[in-house]
Amino acid sequence: MQEVLNHVESHKDHYLSQLKEFLAIPSVSSQSTHNADTRRCAEWVANEMRTIGMQNVQIFETPGHPIVYSEWLGAPGKPTVLFYGHYDVQPVDPVNLWTSPPFEATIRDGNLYARGSADDKGQVFIHFKAIEAYMKNIGRLPVNIKMLIEGEEEVGSVNLENFVKEHKDLLKADLVLISDSSMFAKGIPSVCYGLRGLAYMEVEVIGPNTDLHSGSFGGSIHNPIQALSEIIASLHDKNGRVTVKGFYDDVRPLTKAERAAFKKLPWNDKKYAKELGVKQLYGEKGYTTLERRWARPTLECNGIWGGYTGEGAKTVLPAKAFAKISMRIVPDQSSKKIARLFERHIKSVAPKTVQVIVRELHGGEPAITPIDSPEVQAAVAALQKGFGKKPLYQREGGSIPIVVQFKKLLGLDTVLLGFGLPDENAHAPDEHLNLDNFFGGIRTSVHFYNELPNYWK
Amino acid sequence: MQEVLNHVESHKDHYLSQLKEFLAIPSVSSQSTHNADTRRCAEWVANEMRTIGMQNVQIFETPGHPIVYSEWLGAPGKPTVLFYGHYDVQPVDPVNLWTSPPFEATIRDGNLYARGSADDKGQVFIHFKAIEAYMKNIGRLPVNIKMLIEGEEEVGSVNLENFVKEHKDLLKADLVLISDSSMFAKGIPSVCYGLRGLAYMEVEVIGPNTDLHSGSFGGSIHNPIQALSEIIASLHDKNGRVTVKGFYDDVRPLTKAERAAFKKLPWNDKKYAKELGVKQLYGEKGYTTLERRWARPTLECNGIWGGYTGEGAKTVLPAKAFAKISMRIVPDQSSKKIARLFERHIKSVAPKTVQVIVRELHGGEPAITPIDSPEVQAAVAALQKGFGKKPLYQREGGSIPIVVQFKKLLGLDTVLLGFGLPDENAHAPDEHLNLDNFFGGIRTSVHFYNELPNYWK
Repeated sequence: MQEVLNHVESHKDHYLSQLKEFLAIPSVSSQSTHNADTRRCAEWVANEMRTIGMQNVQIFETPGHPIVYSEWLGAPGKPTVLFYGHYDVQPVDPVNLWTSPPFEATIRDGNLYARGSADDKGQVFIHFKAIEAYMKNIGRLPVNIKMLIEGEEEVGSVNLENFVKEHKDLLKADLVLISDSSMFAKGIPSVCYGLRGLAYMEVEVIGPNTDLHSGSFGGSIHNPIQALSEIIASLHDKNGRVTVKGFYDDVRPLTKAERAAFKKLPWNDKKYAKELGVKQLYGEKGYTTLERRWARPTLECNGIWGGYTGEGAKTVLPAKAFAKISMRIVPDQSSKKIARLFERHIKSVAPKTVQVIVRELHGGEPAITPIDSPEVQAAVAALQKGFGKKPLYQREGGSIPIVVQFKKLLGLDTVLLGFGLPDENAHAPDEHLNLDNFFGGIRTSVHFYNELPNYWK
Repeated sequence: MQEVLNHVESHKDHYLSQLKEFLAIPSVSSQSTHNADTRRCAEWVANEMRTIGMQNVQIFETPGHPIVYSEWLGAPGKPTVLFYGHYDVQPVDPVNLWTSPPFEATIRDGNLYARGSADDKGQVFIHFKAIEAYMKNIGRLPVNIKMLIEGEEEVGSVNLENFVKEHKDLLKADLVLISDSSMFAKGIPSVCYGLRGLAYMEVEVIGPNTDLHSGSFGGSIHNPIQALSEIIASLHDKNGRVTVKGFYDDVRPLTKAERAAFKKLPWNDKKYAKELGVKQLYGEKGYTTLERRWARPTLECNGIWGGYTGEGAKTVLPAKAFAKISMRIVPDQSSKKIARLFERHIKSVAPKTVQVIVRELHGGEPAITPIDSPEVQAAVAALQKGFGKKPLYQREGGSIPIVVQFKKLLGLDTVLLGFGLPDENAHAPDEHLNLDNFFGGIRTSVHFYNELPNYWK
């Protein structure tokens, strides 16, 4: 082990110059003018995999950008890790807001600035270097590894599901490992063990059969905007709880250990409110802000529209009003069931003065990898050794659809070992990666592969 | 009198061919390609005024389309009527939906089809012919008349207010008479004696200082769409009454006579609901539908928007949400005061979790000419003689800004003697005017000028 870690220590400058090469390729997946760059980037990844000692390196064509696969399966009896990452990046516009050119990686104040530095090239590269350090020094890895690096994450991973479905045998593994997220805060390594799911709905409220003059007709029929507002207002009670009937029935309660773990995270409600620019927070009574964001189901209005929305005044009593309303769900809620409960509830509370149509637009399941599971415990041990600091536990309020896909298609839980920071501008100008976290990430990666078999038994 | 009425009877065909000339001029005020037509129409009106015996005929230039004025003041000691109308018309698009060409007046099924037939050339022409009948047969009118026919009513009468302000002496009169509205229904002549006013507001609800990811942040701060919906939902109580504090304080109650008069109008709530396509009506408890529409103040949402309103799903927790909300007001409410009460109320009910900005966009005062006033009683007598049927009383839920202007600038009440019908497509293809109402209108106009001095004493 020590020679592996020594190798990492002695190659830091080399790593940075290699990573700059990777970051110099403008693999913007959403812009077809960069199609050739994106392909070149896939080839760079494949070549790098060969160089570090991965085997069976393949570039799989898709209807979009290619998927790069490789494996090292020389540790029979040991667990097999399916590592997922992506080599494509977000667009760089507005490019004039970048302090240094987005595809010329530049170090300032201990950070590496470039598009893709944090999301996700830098984090993928961390694992390449951990693997390389093992192969160069002891010629083998402590576990089996399969790497799946796609080029369409920033455009919704549109071809990944089909690929996974068609290559279930190739991708067979014991767990999924992803480094494409952030730790809780600078100097606070954390392991993310849960994600919320989603049920995204659209509500259409129909009043009169045509737009009416609000002067001539106002006061005699139920205004659809008013009716929609009344429905929305009824969806939370005075304690901030969602009133949809049966909404909380399947919610797995937070364990004492989880609540205690969240409490250890440095957090200040006042600071959070100030940063967001609100005078006072809002949420479900009886839960902390982090619990509300990560581990409790919530209902949010994502959009609303109806009637006249231009400049000035138009005296219309509109025929219709619409809202997009989504619910974040947690284990063991099901997206389909929540969508059904929502539709039933909306129809039951809608007044007879209007018609209501409810549509389900999109859904996704929540995910959790219990904190006492072997993979999470191995991640904790690795982070402690890699950063010299006991890591904390966190969840994430959003969804990572690919995590749900891996669970659904391959039956695998995911460990989210994020080395980014929340303020590293992943999708904005001046994206960067903290270099302490970059090198700490490589050490953690080395330790994770080493620790995993100990916890797996 | 009888020779005047006989003259009308014997000139019906002549009237129609003259009116067709007037309707053939495409005086579309909103389209600059028709500027020459609009001017030609003003000249047609001035020439017609000279022909029928009006004096001091003048075409006043404005920054837009001209205003045509004339007078006959040969009845000293008798009341002076300021007749207002307009010679401009709405555009004709979509022209392919017209059964016959919009500027070639065509008679079908007892109706005259043409743009401007009902709104307002046909109704202005009614008064020309009444005046002509007097002048040709007895050489004088029973009252003094000033005529003010503008060419910008369909574009908001943008230059009329200044003109009235600058010609207060010229326009001095005892009452205003307008024929630019509809009777209650076919075969039911009615006099409209009240209009509602308006206070039109915009509400902006501000939550976080930027749009947030609804997964990561959802459940921890008050969603501005939700907060706005909660505010809107609170603006009506369960009896359909507006909850804005002080809202009803200045409302002049409906008199017993008014309520009795409204009850005489043929009305069927079920038919109304069916026509509008709603299962059930909605409104302030304790009032009939017509009372709610015409004589009670109401609050309507005219528009709402915030967050993502495009196709599909976007998981945004928006920074802001907006609504346009207008209140129709009745005598003796004041637009400014109601706007102030609304702003104060919204600020008092807004939760501390959001910021709220309230803007006043537009306002207008209500108007009423009491049913026992001389001008309304003269109109009632004239309608009864003109149509051979006792007319009914109605109000109108919308506003006619010019009525408020005449009250404000000249101190004059207005009589609305409408000869159109509610379904004559005033602003749509196949606009038409019922010929029974056209000829009944001329007779009524003859009688109104004759009756007015009797009631005025």
